[in-house]
Amino acid sequence: MDVNEFRRRGKEVVDAIADYYENLDNVPPLSAVSPGYLYKIMPNEAPEDPESFEDIQADIKTKIMPGMTHWQSGNFFAWFPSNSSFPAILGDMYSSMFNIVGFNWICSPAATELETVVMDWLGKLVGLDKRYMGIKDDGTEGTGGGVIQGTASEAHIVVMIAGREKALERLKAQGLSEDDADKMRYKFVAYFSDQTHSAGQKAANIIGCKTHTVPTGDDLRLTKQALRAAIAADKAAGLIPFFVCGTFGTTNTTAIDDLPGIAEVAESEHMWNHVDAAYAGAALVCPEFRPLAAGIERADSFNFNAHKWMLTNFDCSALWVADSTHLVNALSIHREYFPPAEDSTSFVKNYRDWQLPLGRRFRALKLWFVLRMYGASGIRAHIREHVRQAKWLEEKLLADGRFEILAPAVFGLVVFRLKASAISKSDKDADLESLNKANTDLVTYCNEDGRLFMLSTQLKGVVAVRVAIGSSFGTQKNVDLVLDVLKESASKVIAEF
Amino acid sequence: MDVNEFRRRGKEVVDAIADYYENLDNVPPLSAVSPGYLYKIMPNEAPEDPESFEDIQADIKTKIMPGMTHWQSGNFFAWFPSNSSFPAILGDMYSSMFNIVGFNWICSPAATELETVVMDWLGKLVGLDKRYMGIKDDGTEGTGGGVIQGTASEAHIVVMIAGREKALERLKAQGLSEDDADKMRYKFVAYFSDQTHSAGQKAANIIGCKTHTVPTGDDLRLTKQALRAAIAADKAAGLIPFFVCGTFGTTNTTAIDDLPGIAEVAESEHMWNHVDAAYAGAALVCPEFRPLAAGIERADSFNFNAHKWMLTNFDCSALWVADSTHLVNALSIHREYFPPAEDSTSFVKNYRDWQLPLGRRFRALKLWFVLRMYGASGIRAHIREHVRQAKWLEEKLLADGRFEILAPAVFGLVVFRLKASAISKSDKDADLESLNKANTDLVTYCNEDGRLFMLSTQLKGVVAVRVAIGSSFGTQKNVDLVLDVLKESASKVIAEF
Repeated sequence: MDVNEFRRRGKEVVDAIADYYENLDNVPPLSAVSPGYLYKIMPNEAPEDPESFEDIQADIKTKIMPGMTHWQSGNFFAWFPSNSSFPAILGDMYSSMFNIVGFNWICSPAATELETVVMDWLGKLVGLDKRYMGIKDDGTEGTGGGVIQGTASEAHIVVMIAGREKALERLKAQGLSEDDADKMRYKFVAYFSDQTHSAGQKAANIIGCKTHTVPTGDDLRLTKQALRAAIAADKAAGLIPFFVCGTFGTTNTTAIDDLPGIAEVAESEHMWNHVDAAYAGAALVCPEFRPLAAGIERADSFNFNAHKWMLTNFDCSALWVADSTHLVNALSIHREYFPPAEDSTSFVKNYRDWQLPLGRRFRALKLWFVLRMYGASGIRAHIREHVRQAKWLEEKLLADGRFEILAPAVFGLVVFRLKASAISKSDKDADLESLNKANTDLVTYCNEDGRLFMLSTQLKGVVAVRVAIGSSFGTQKNVDLVLDVLKESASKVIAEF
Repeated sequence: MDVNEFRRRGKEVVDAIADYYENLDNVPPLSAVSPGYLYKIMPNEAPEDPESFEDIQADIKTKIMPGMTHWQSGNFFAWFPSNSSFPAILGDMYSSMFNIVGFNWICSPAATELETVVMDWLGKLVGLDKRYMGIKDDGTEGTGGGVIQGTASEAHIVVMIAGREKALERLKAQGLSEDDADKMRYKFVAYFSDQTHSAGQKAANIIGCKTHTVPTGDDLRLTKQALRAAIAADKAAGLIPFFVCGTFGTTNTTAIDDLPGIAEVAESEHMWNHVDAAYAGAALVCPEFRPLAAGIERADSFNFNAHKWMLTNFDCSALWVADSTHLVNALSIHREYFPPAEDSTSFVKNYRDWQLPLGRRFRALKLWFVLRMYGASGIRAHIREHVRQAKWLEEKLLADGRFEILAPAVFGLVVFRLKASAISKSDKDADLESLNKANTDLVTYCNEDGRLFMLSTQLKGVVAVRVAIGSSFGTQKNVDLVLDVLKESASKVIAEF
């Protein structure tokens, strides 16, 4: 494909993208293919000779589209949203154009510096403490700063490594040799709640440390008291607490852990304190949510995914650390083929030392496009509209009388179920098993309707319906549809009981 | 930005990309800005109100472009190439459009299944053994398969974790409890050569194991004998060898380790054997390079970056494992919000368990576009032309008489220096220090010329010039330029001695 064909084909793809978004509401968001569908219709090997772009375009329609679950549909209410936006797509096109591998400053100074700049912009936008800024007010470099990770999972691994490094340094400061400190590693324990995202356990598996899953109470929040009790038990058994993750907006219910209490414990125990706000962190662009975020200013690291609810295409996970020393100590490796010339200034960060991989895309571009083309006011409006829709749905479900809310809708997630009285034939309430089956069926029927996609989850054994509102392209009419389908499906479930 | 503005702006960006590539040869590939240049000209925070796309377009020209090091320039000869191509850019545009988070099959069946299909295509294209295929000849799922990682670094971490899991399983099979096996972790040693990419050491830092850097000889290859000696010493000290990385094409000189010898040692020591072919693996699309790759068929995992020398935009690092059991055991975590329904079939892989993060972009699309639009024949031609150019440059440098080749150009990398006789004023040869200075100066002068970008490296204390040929958009005239600039700069260096 020469440059002239690219001009033509590229514009066709732009139109295909526009057409796709214009038509999304008319397509079932959940793919209906069976496992292995594509294996059966694909050749066994790559073609020997070049094929035409027309052939590929045709195959996208006939072979790929049927196997797509459409995350951008306004009728996609599963998991959490994965916002795309036109500005972010354009930013990513420029990123594909440059196609740099930005592991250090000279690889493309603009890529490094724009990342520092926009991560400070974003940090200020969500009200982060100055400790987390990459550039101080006087223009010199801070000890902390932001960095774009691929995912919250990677952010989790990176900060857990920093926490381990900090703990090892502490053991060495207490007089242990490097070797003896290493022998203590198997005693290191990371703390999560039973509601923490699986990324926490996975990070622990990766770095190879123990974990302690601390039980939450009925409100599904990790408390200071429960954390203290867990730590005390482990210390009594000779283990070494080194890391705790508090969550601002859990996956199951968007619960917010006792972040000030966790900070207090982490400080007294010298543990690394990470706050995972993967989904709900985006809400902090609106000042009205900031009171919920007390405690983040005392943490060691904070992370949220701009690619979830903040209009920036995947992948763009924003991580800030208050002090990058332990991170860089753990992840920095020098080789002769990394020229150090410019690295020694106080002005540039080597982001390769702030992440797991060496290479990295120019991801700051798309974030820059989003921040400028929406502006702070536009992003706030985006968040507030989804919060309004979630509260609207919650009210309508309550008004219906057959549903109960299992966790208050604070952000864009509505968590509820058909209540016992709705399905019990006799005077007494239905048992948990029947109720769980009814709500599992409810989600199945909603999805079988074909017009939308939602999921259930389990809250300590209770099946809950989970409607996550937040698509970039969703409007009130999509939430109207959810309500209609829920009501219809509920009637079907009830009729069958 | 509404969909109509996107149609217009998207097409402008397509033209901007085409213009960029048409003009690349006229732009200095290395940015000349000073550290902090961007901080000084950027606002301190995001705008409150939306800005126009024109403003951003203007800033790309005036603020971003000066800070870019142009990896796609035909005159970029630093590190290794980072190939972009028009088919890959178009594929990535579709990927941005879908913007899925494909952590399991139902997230978008097409994304999972296309990845399995194209990774088999690619594996066959580079001549991999059937052990590495995801789908067996009879259509059922194999124990192995390919997966797209972001980078070779991530591939390294992932397979090292699998190796650790395998070693822990072995300890447990020998009768150790889980806890007692854990206590042995600090004894685990990973083996690399002194030429292995820094990603190996970084992976070890991340998972927290010991490393043993095995010295290479004059040919900069890791040998069976040196590896055996290192292992014997560590075992005598009570340590536990668990992982070895052989390299097919090292970063410094594209040396190829004794892969059959390493396989033999790894098998007898029950170690995980990973082959890192990040750069040179792409050459295996050409059958004439396959004899160099003997031993890969006996490894546990093999990795090369399609985003280096195989026309697929970053990030697309192709990793194959012969048996995914240990990988999945180490990285799989179940949560209620990951519906298992379709996971139980033998037909679909949960790629979230084959990688560090949970979420993943639809990266198989761009690889599919590249494989189809170039065809196997087109990719072979791409590789062979660069190999031809490298050999041409090597010959011309030798013919000049002032240069010596420090490692034979097997792929696209030419490694050489000004030789002692060229710079010595007296009859006796120049000392190493003078020679190193001369060659450091040579690279400095070449880069100061402004028309190209290359790097030096150090080979056991010897400064070597490294010209990496392989840009998607480079042609013979770019290599002509390298030769001219090298000759001119050499004359300048010699005149100053």
